Formats: sequence, structure tokens, C-alpha cells
Amino acid sequence: MLKVEHIGIAVKSLSISVPLFEKLLNTPCYKTEAVTSEQVQTAFFQRGETKIELLEATGPDSAIAKFVEKKGEGMHHIAFEVTDIYAEMKRLQSEGFTLLQDAPKHGADNKLICFLHPRSTNGVLVELCQEIK
Amino acid sequence: MLKVEHIGIAVKSLSISVPLFEKLLNTPCYKTEAVTSEQVQTAFFQRGETKIELLEATGPDSAIAKFVEKKGEGMHHIAFEVTDIYAEMKRLQSEGFTLLQDAPKHGADNKLICFLHPRSTNGVLVELCQEIK
Repeated sequence: MLKVEHIGIAVKSLSISVPLFEKLLNTPCYKTEAVTSEQVQTAFFQRGETKIELLEATGPDSAIAKFVEKKGEGMHHIAFEVTDIYAEMKRLQSEGFTLLQDAPKHGADNKLICFLHPRSTNGVLVELCQEIK
Repeated sequence: MLKVEHIGIAVKSLSISVPLFEKLLNTPCYKTEAVTSEQVQTAFFQRGETKIELLEATGPDSAIAKFVEKKGEGMHHIAFEVTDIYAEMKRLQSEGFTLLQDAPKHGADNKLICFLHPRSTNGVLVELCQEIK
């Protein structure tokens, strides 16, 4: 795990939260991107080497819609950048962590991603991500 | 706001969670520190320019004890490093954010810190921190 690539924050409405985080972080949102497979719209901010990713559900079956309904808006996941996602998935599985997927899938921001079950990580939803070259 | 200085994670037991996060992050815990004023014991890991700070309550009145009781273990706060905490507090207040303190206080890891009320930040508990020189 190289660094905290991004922190995902679940919000109800990007139109409200993007201007709010622009003020909070004192930096403009530099990109928005829809991830249709996950039914989310995302908005990105950069601070140092880490991105803040706001996530708004675009459909009722989105994991973000369920999260916001159950827990309200707030921190959703931490994504760590890895050099070899396949090797890291294998290492974590052998250490007893539960992966939410058998194989990496395509996420926002040109990444291969895989989530770990928060049950195995003290309630923290952890994402591994590797840039697609 | 310069970078994500650390991410705070509330846990029930450092004796369980430190070895777990050592496996997860594939790096040893490099420091533990008690913050008696906050009734917490902390443990730190480094990944890139960001630290992961595990927080265990050491008394029933600790904010971490209340958090874990109400929400369970998991992500607790995001701390951003700032160059001038007084100027940043003033800026955020003028932008409409609610500060949880009128003046910075001493936190773990030789820092001056100030929290923002999550009500004003989409449910995210945000900490400002500045290293004491």
C-alpha cells in the first residue's frame, strides 16, 4: 500500500456538497465523473497526494443510496493505492481479510479497484486501487 | 489545507486493532501515545504522506467511547494539515463553518488542533492540525 489515494465521502446532493467542499478545502472541484455500473456520480478535489471523492447515488440500488439511508452522509471509504492489485488481494486474503470481489473491477478515475469487507477491517470500508496504464 | 495529515479510526481495542492494521497496511505501528485530556490512547501508521491514527477510549466520557457506542468502530475523522491554524479557523468561520473550539488545543503527535462540527461539513468530522515547532 503506497499512499491514501482518496477518501470517499457519501453525500445526498453534489450540487450542494461540491460548493461546500470547495469552501472547506479551499480548492476547486477539478473533475466530475459518472460511474454508471455503480450508480454513482463523483466529484474530485485534490489536497497533497490525496483526493477527496464525493459520491452521490444516481439510483436506489446504489451502495451509496443504501449507505446514506442507513447512516446518513459522511465518510464512506478509504482507498489505498497499490502497485499490483492482484498481488495485494492475494496477500490480504492470505492474512485473513475478506475481499468483496474475486477480481478487480473498473472504478472511477481510470482505476482497477477491489473492496475489503468492513467486517474484517474494524468497520472501515477499504478500497485497493491501481491506475490503469 | 496542505494535505490529509491523518485519518482517525475509532476502535474498541488497540491490542486487537494494532496487529490487524499492521497486516492490513503491511507496515508496523511506529508510535503509540496517550492523550489524557481526551481520554484516548492512539496508535500511528504511516502510508505515503498520511498517517492512520487508531483511537481507543480510555474512559467512559471520551468522545471515542461515545462514538463507538453509537456508531460502532470505524472512520472517525479526517485531519488536514494547515500552515496557520488561526488563519484557517478564521477563514472557515467566515465561510459559515461551525468550529467546535474558539481556540486551538493540544492534540496527539505534537499538534495544535481544532475540529469543525460535522453538521456543517456533510457529516464528516474534520480536524485542522498544525505541527508545533
